[in-house]
Amino acid sequence: MMELLEQTVAAVRPLDEAAMREAEARVRNLTMPDWALGRLCDLAVQLSGISGIVPAPIARRVIVVMAGDHGVVAEGVARHKQEVTQQMVANMTNGGAGVNVLGRMNGATVLLADLGIAARDESLVTGGKLLDYSVGKGTANLAKGPAMSREDAVRSLENGIRIAGSLAGDYDVFGTGEMGIGNTTPATAIAACLLKTSPDALTGPGAGLTPEAVHHKIGVIKTALAVNQPDPNDAIDVLAKVGGYEIGGIAGLILGAAAARKPVLVDGFISTAGAMLARVLCPETVNYAILAHGSAEPGHYVMCDWLGQKPLLDLGMRLGEGTGVAMGLNIIEASHRMLTEMATFDSAGVDARHPGA
Amino acid sequence: MMELLEQTVAAVRPLDEAAMREAEARVRNLTMPDWALGRLCDLAVQLSGISGIVPAPIARRVIVVMAGDHGVVAEGVARHKQEVTQQMVANMTNGGAGVNVLGRMNGATVLLADLGIAARDESLVTGGKLLDYSVGKGTANLAKGPAMSREDAVRSLENGIRIAGSLAGDYDVFGTGEMGIGNTTPATAIAACLLKTSPDALTGPGAGLTPEAVHHKIGVIKTALAVNQPDPNDAIDVLAKVGGYEIGGIAGLILGAAAARKPVLVDGFISTAGAMLARVLCPETVNYAILAHGSAEPGHYVMCDWLGQKPLLDLGMRLGEGTGVAMGLNIIEASHRMLTEMATFDSAGVDARHPGA
Repeated sequence: MMELLEQTVAAVRPLDEAAMREAEARVRNLTMPDWALGRLCDLAVQLSGISGIVPAPIARRVIVVMAGDHGVVAEGVARHKQEVTQQMVANMTNGGAGVNVLGRMNGATVLLADLGIAARDESLVTGGKLLDYSVGKGTANLAKGPAMSREDAVRSLENGIRIAGSLAGDYDVFGTGEMGIGNTTPATAIAACLLKTSPDALTGPGAGLTPEAVHHKIGVIKTALAVNQPDPNDAIDVLAKVGGYEIGGIAGLILGAAAARKPVLVDGFISTAGAMLARVLCPETVNYAILAHGSAEPGHYVMCDWLGQKPLLDLGMRLGEGTGVAMGLNIIEASHRMLTEMATFDSAGVDARHPGA
Repeated sequence: MMELLEQTVAAVRPLDEAAMREAEARVRNLTMPDWALGRLCDLAVQLSGISGIVPAPIARRVIVVMAGDHGVVAEGVARHKQEVTQQMVANMTNGGAGVNVLGRMNGATVLLADLGIAARDESLVTGGKLLDYSVGKGTANLAKGPAMSREDAVRSLENGIRIAGSLAGDYDVFGTGEMGIGNTTPATAIAACLLKTSPDALTGPGAGLTPEAVHHKIGVIKTALAVNQPDPNDAIDVLAKVGGYEIGGIAGLILGAAAARKPVLVDGFISTAGAMLARVLCPETVNYAILAHGSAEPGHYVMCDWLGQKPLLDLGMRLGEGTGVAMGLNIIEASHRMLTEMATFDSAGVDARHPGA
């Protein structure tokens, strides 16, 4: 129990400074004013530091969509009924969801993992379309008590780590994604706990609540925090009391990716809550987890600030699934191509060196 | 004289409302919460309104890099010497510049046009690598008097229109780009004139000026505005007195694209100055010109606001050339694929309709 989690946390190392310096020097000799491609330059350095290789490999990309259900939907915090989780997972196995479309476009394999769907279609598992990492058939109602046991919180984290481990040989870049009706409620509760702030400013409409329903949702989250009293210094306690199986899986995937020296793009609001838990478990993960898209959900930017990052994109998206990651992959690729395909001042005979070159 | 310009302005029509309504209805039936892909949804509607076709065609993409030189470099407003314009154009013909790399990645043809290089390599023209739309061999020093004659301002606009016309049959999406040592100075002067604001808040380091040099540049721009007294209600007067040949070409390309019902992605700071001139000549162009990237140059966001837009991307880039357009093309494609590849609630059997569906 917890051995895999502890080993994984211990295996995460700082970024490779020598590789970062090498990448930085290469960027400064490309035919442009110093650092003129901004975040593409930053990413070239960071990705080199993550992999220890210049240029960092980025060709093989996978988005892991973690699915799970939430007992708190009994409180009326979601617009849709719980069955929509499984319906959307089925849609994803058929390639028709947003994450499939945008993932395909940007060269990513999209894999689906059941971390805790309430009533899944077993044929998807036997047919190999849905990976079985189920920890339980939906969490308990976190407004009444813990969402899950401490043991199941560890299992969800370790299942995320196992997924990362099983894919590390085949992929260069990881991405998180999720599907789970009701999951902005646990994500907001996690954020409120770790940020030590009121849910008032963090809570938003999720998949389309009215202002009245958002007000009700805030009350449910406040109740959950009061009933459960999660300890913000203990990520497992927070995950168990006010989290969700797929959010634990996301945190685990980030830990596993970091331990394997792989960059992991983090999708929107729900995934960022997972990244926050990963940071509490292992602060070094913030250097491996790259926030892809700033959610339209109001609390998201506060969470991003706490992780010390500005997301790559801000396209007003609030779909989740991994759609922000899919769009962010184009920026990762742009950074790579800049480093590998742009001419240098010497090679192009351009007389415009800057002091850094 | 001016006939082509006047005809083109007159040919720009409002967006096609019926096509926009049709696109909107399609978006609302895709398997996601209402409008959950944010700007991808907005773009799907806008692109349909531009072309009058649902889904709007976007497969054939061209970025036109307009090159020109600027007499104002004699005032010491640029870090690099004028020859670098031609050197970078040569780098572009060899595929080694940022715009080539990022354009290739996102499926764009990159074309180079000479609007006013001071000393171009004629072999690039005879070899077909540089289109000859030259209006003059660099502008005059705008700190001493008009950058060009009113006739040449019209010529630069009409040459941009001609370029758009020559490409309209072969491309679905246009993009602007530029290369011209010193061209943040005329771009800032144009913006200050049209915004009726002081250059102080708008002027930035361009390709890498020191704070002292930025202060000097502000003084040069103020002198230019005082000496020339451009009339902000007369775009041709502004272009002639404090503009540049490639900036006129960009404004013309936007006018020509709009007249041909093609979307035109607008690159960073310099191109946005061109889009501002196009708006003064023809207000309807703002619906055809899509700002691709918010420049790190300080005045850019004020200019974007004046055009009523928020750029698609904010990646801290300040390279110009058309690199922001190249990155924006991926977002245009994402919008298209959303509309054409995502499942609908009916087709996927997902029971999550929203009131708009």
